[in-house]
Amino acid sequence: MIEEVKSLRANGGLKWGYYDEDVLPAWVAEMDFGLAPAISDALHDAVTRGLTGYPYPAAEEKVAVAATRFWADRFGWSIDPAWVFPAPDVIEGGVRAIRHLTRPGSPVVLHSPVYFPFYGMVERAGRDVIEVRCPADDSGRFSLDLPGIEAGLAAGAGSVVLCNPWNPTGRVLDETELGDLVEVVRRHDARLITDEIHSPIVYSGNAHTPAARLDSELVVTVASASKAWNLPGLKCAQVVLTNEEDRSRWSAYFTPEKVGVGTFGLIANAAAYASSVDWFDETLARLESNRDLFVDLVAEHLPEAVCHPPQGTYLGWIDLTRYELGNPTAYMLDTARVALTSGTPFGGEAGQFARFNFGTDPSLIAEMLERMGKAVRER
Amino acid sequence: MIEEVKSLRANGGLKWGYYDEDVLPAWVAEMDFGLAPAISDALHDAVTRGLTGYPYPAAEEKVAVAATRFWADRFGWSIDPAWVFPAPDVIEGGVRAIRHLTRPGSPVVLHSPVYFPFYGMVERAGRDVIEVRCPADDSGRFSLDLPGIEAGLAAGAGSVVLCNPWNPTGRVLDETELGDLVEVVRRHDARLITDEIHSPIVYSGNAHTPAARLDSELVVTVASASKAWNLPGLKCAQVVLTNEEDRSRWSAYFTPEKVGVGTFGLIANAAAYASSVDWFDETLARLESNRDLFVDLVAEHLPEAVCHPPQGTYLGWIDLTRYELGNPTAYMLDTARVALTSGTPFGGEAGQFARFNFGTDPSLIAEMLERMGKAVRER
Repeated sequence: MIEEVKSLRANGGLKWGYYDEDVLPAWVAEMDFGLAPAISDALHDAVTRGLTGYPYPAAEEKVAVAATRFWADRFGWSIDPAWVFPAPDVIEGGVRAIRHLTRPGSPVVLHSPVYFPFYGMVERAGRDVIEVRCPADDSGRFSLDLPGIEAGLAAGAGSVVLCNPWNPTGRVLDETELGDLVEVVRRHDARLITDEIHSPIVYSGNAHTPAARLDSELVVTVASASKAWNLPGLKCAQVVLTNEEDRSRWSAYFTPEKVGVGTFGLIANAAAYASSVDWFDETLARLESNRDLFVDLVAEHLPEAVCHPPQGTYLGWIDLTRYELGNPTAYMLDTARVALTSGTPFGGEAGQFARFNFGTDPSLIAEMLERMGKAVRER
Repeated sequence: MIEEVKSLRANGGLKWGYYDEDVLPAWVAEMDFGLAPAISDALHDAVTRGLTGYPYPAAEEKVAVAATRFWADRFGWSIDPAWVFPAPDVIEGGVRAIRHLTRPGSPVVLHSPVYFPFYGMVERAGRDVIEVRCPADDSGRFSLDLPGIEAGLAAGAGSVVLCNPWNPTGRVLDETELGDLVEVVRRHDARLITDEIHSPIVYSGNAHTPAARLDSELVVTVASASKAWNLPGLKCAQVVLTNEEDRSRWSAYFTPEKVGVGTFGLIANAAAYASSVDWFDETLARLESNRDLFVDLVAEHLPEAVCHPPQGTYLGWIDLTRYELGNPTAYMLDTARVALTSGTPFGGEAGQFARFNFGTDPSLIAEMLERMGKAVRER
């Protein structure tokens, strides 16, 4: 484990470079599995060719073709590559979708706890958030608060931004849940903007359903290879517009100089979707095994914690309320020297929750949970 | 020349990949000189280490330290690295500066003809443009319309966005011109947002003056290594806040998840400013020689054109009015098979102008101007 840590820390980056050297990081959503060889090759080639200039249509087309093939193979979601538009990241894609494709000035429903940059996304779109706090059952399994969402729409919201697979709760919404949500949104003549960045990361027994497969007219999809292939620093996401009016509005506004996507992001996304699926499937198997380990070790070391086994994402959402740690994330950082992501900014009174990133070596997962267990026992 | 063209076209990218194969490109502001070796090495290393995750503080600090050293050495502009904030690109930096650092709702003065994405920048900031059309003398030398700018400020504008070195006119504003502008802006208690992305690209007999050196309180500076080192696809610029209140406002709002800069952009910008100055000086010498060639060949092949020798930038701004070509850019594309950037979107009634990018091999500059000369002669 020590060698693993040394090499990860020497590599640099946000997750491993932010905290002191004795802290093990389970916070920001980065994986520790390196780059898929096809992505690495494509990026080395781009550097060698000096392709650091502006994004270009051929690179955008490659992404669109590769992404739609991947989605068709993986999710049975067959769409025209011409419906795929580049954006710098899913958040900026969401800002643009809210601003340009929803009723002017309309508030936006968020289902908390949810990926906290969504709040800033709505603010940057110049809109108000209607936060709908979603319930969890005794096992820690969250579900959408549909009546709450409907009340938000009835109060004037023009859109719901969905996070599915659901960061931080680890839920993968099933087709029935999604169908019910779509029905509510349809009833209020609103839009559903769905962030499906985690969609490839779904474990056995669960299946990702692209919301746009259920209603191509009201749904706007935002996706990216950033999460499954660990590319968030390269600035590339896909806004998928399955609605013709959306496409014409988008094309009229987002002339090339307004797109702002990264050229290397396009190159890496294309290499991910087109040529790195085997790499990802191996990674997914590691993540599923990590997920199982994580669940077992939480039960062992944090018996009072509530944590539903993640159905997707490499993020565990741990309710530490019963330990009465005050600020659990600060406590774990100080005492266990484990960096978690605090639940607080995710909304929904999640101050007693912490998000745990298990996209790393199993030995580190074990070490971190042992440290956390020790920290609560010694309190 | 044929080999050069083949190799550039095979490399791909926007400039060389957009038009038909028989078209020579002098349009989008990309250079054809490859990457500086230190940037190439840094990017290969980043790929090898898989640093495709989120931007991280150590990379941001490297850029800030390297950029401020470069600016101090080059322009005698000594500032604290802590005053340098990352942004995805100069346009997004401008959007943010307008939105967060100028009087709420205040219109923005642009001095046309000017880099056309400025219009979209103001629109995305949610503000109105006050376009001040700047005059040129008989030699084609543009200067700021100071009374016009003052009238815009008197009419309520809260800021002027300056482009210096001035794309597309090739002007490098001298210290007197800048001082007069600063004085006008100060009189109206407004802000000067200065895009200095071209600042390293200044030819003999001219010197770049950072506007913030003249007034650190009212000026907001936006810069990037993107232009001088050809890195626009990597998404990294610097917003330099020499005003303390700006810094505290910026830091409070732009928490890490709102920054959106590219990790490889940070790495490449740091390598550019810190370790690629010799490469750039060689490139600058090539560009100056290209500038001289360009000016001579315009005089030879387009004797009726008006084109002031660019003092900076690798862009020539050619007034083709006297040839009465209708749409000169379309004519040159159709007839000469040379792709220029149309003057129209730059504002200021520039429809009879075309922008010519001379950041390429001299043989191509010669071939393009010969073709353009033939096209006007045969008309």
